[in-house]
Amino acid sequence: MPKRYTEEELIARIFAPIAGPAALGLKDDAALIEASKEPTVATVDMLVAGVHFFADDSPALIAKKALRVNLSDLAAKGATPIGFLLSLALPADWTNDWLRAFASGLSEDAQVYAAPLIGGDTTATPGPLTISIAALGRTPRFVPRTGARPGDAIYVSGTIGDAALGLALRRDPSLAARLSPASRAHLLDRYLLPRPRLDLAPMLRAHANAAMDVSDGLAGDLAKLCRASGVGAVVEATSIPLSDAASELIALSPELFESALTGGDDYEILCTASAWAARPLDVVRIGEIASVAGPPIFLGPDGEPIAFAKPSFSHF
Amino acid sequence: MPKRYTEEELIARIFAPIAGPAALGLKDDAALIEASKEPTVATVDMLVAGVHFFADDSPALIAKKALRVNLSDLAAKGATPIGFLLSLALPADWTNDWLRAFASGLSEDAQVYAAPLIGGDTTATPGPLTISIAALGRTPRFVPRTGARPGDAIYVSGTIGDAALGLALRRDPSLAARLSPASRAHLLDRYLLPRPRLDLAPMLRAHANAAMDVSDGLAGDLAKLCRASGVGAVVEATSIPLSDAASELIALSPELFESALTGGDDYEILCTASAWAARPLDVVRIGEIASVAGPPIFLGPDGEPIAFAKPSFSHF
Repeated sequence: MPKRYTEEELIARIFAPIAGPAALGLKDDAALIEASKEPTVATVDMLVAGVHFFADDSPALIAKKALRVNLSDLAAKGATPIGFLLSLALPADWTNDWLRAFASGLSEDAQVYAAPLIGGDTTATPGPLTISIAALGRTPRFVPRTGARPGDAIYVSGTIGDAALGLALRRDPSLAARLSPASRAHLLDRYLLPRPRLDLAPMLRAHANAAMDVSDGLAGDLAKLCRASGVGAVVEATSIPLSDAASELIALSPELFESALTGGDDYEILCTASAWAARPLDVVRIGEIASVAGPPIFLGPDGEPIAFAKPSFSHF
Repeated sequence: MPKRYTEEELIARIFAPIAGPAALGLKDDAALIEASKEPTVATVDMLVAGVHFFADDSPALIAKKALRVNLSDLAAKGATPIGFLLSLALPADWTNDWLRAFASGLSEDAQVYAAPLIGGDTTATPGPLTISIAALGRTPRFVPRTGARPGDAIYVSGTIGDAALGLALRRDPSLAARLSPASRAHLLDRYLLPRPRLDLAPMLRAHANAAMDVSDGLAGDLAKLCRASGVGAVVEATSIPLSDAASELIALSPELFESALTGGDDYEILCTASAWAARPLDVVRIGEIASVAGPPIFLGPDGEPIAFAKPSFSHF
């Protein structure tokens, strides 16, 4: 076993460089976040090796994924990050190299998304690598799940289904082999690495009535949004934005269209708005909120409702 | 395997009843904490079965311990709780009964300490039960580790060493058998269940120059406080407050005095103050901050410094 950092070295060499001023150099019992006139938004996600990622995924990607899934929740609420608290349970075989790579991934994202580390706790575990990140943010207007109104247009950002199809490729190498290398790379990358849509937060708080991030599949997440708002929805499946790579794969294997709409890990934004005069870049209208409460209806190319075998992804 | 809650049932039946208004019924992507003129204090601790507690400990006690270690950090900073985020990784054999007992423990403490659940994430794990709690609080004055000044008196609250001696009893039943039942029960209870000193937070923010909670042993934690403040300390070991139970056990086994001073899990407050005119209830002066920076010196009954074999407890 190569020499490993002590807990003190770990904090000083690995984590302190990622920390923001609120962390007080990671030398105190707690972080200190200055008062603000805006409310605070708080969210947490826990990721376990073998459940949410593969233990042999690149440590930098694991770190980025753990942070980004939380930043995605902040983005969906219209919030700007304050920073994050990191809990890390390290399995018996951790190495300094692994931790340095993990921290360098975190550090990159902390800078890109202006979301510094503000505190944390590291422990040993006899089990798999386990990461919990609690992210804090601020917004002058919290965009709730509950605000969708009948007649609202329904929008999604980016493209839907790439991550779910990336996971399908990882699970079925023979399927992956039939796809072009560029499409394969695109889908695998979207599975490994969410892109939190913090760029959309200002537009959401200005215009959206309701919003959430798409983390458990568009179909299931829209159902949650409808339930929270006490409404229904009609979606034209043909208007759901797909990447070229997703379209290529679905052409090869049409039954994967359902996976695209019901699989997880998109981390795009699903929102509703009543009057979005100038449609923002990279957001597409896919349907409309209906007054009769119930699960959303997805209309296929033939105008008939699509019946999903498994409407939502669950880790549980 | 008996029938188990779905993730949705878990949230609605187990966690929503513990949640405060900021949790938005646990139905949104994130919690919404109202703005305040006071800064926010944030801390996180991760507990793993087999490392921080025994997997067969009572679920209510595990829950309380996980929350209380965080509330103890808030207390040491002079903060009042806002609430907490809970991440829970459940091993394969979890049951509804276990979760109900876990939640009832959390619920009791959320009420006693006015610290509601504000958000969370639950997942499955192939490893041991793993709990991460991030607690948020507020204070008009954050009491740092760095504020100790030469000449400050050093105080501790409550009694020191009970939890470490409780752990010693669990590890050595023959030792436990030599102790009176009342003392045995007291020490085991103090090991299982920390008591966060939120009652002391107002006094700390009014009077203390520096403070921290004693979680890794008085000797090691005072060394951290001295390092953070750039000072030294002289402590009269005979003035360190011991419970009757600890005194009884140390009389039987004098070498355990070192365990009392260097073991973990006291969760009492260690603080320094320059002029604490009316000494508050349940806080005892144990020594004085010295101007020459360095590890604290503990003077024994003979006036000679005590040499500790292992000055601080580490989980890592």
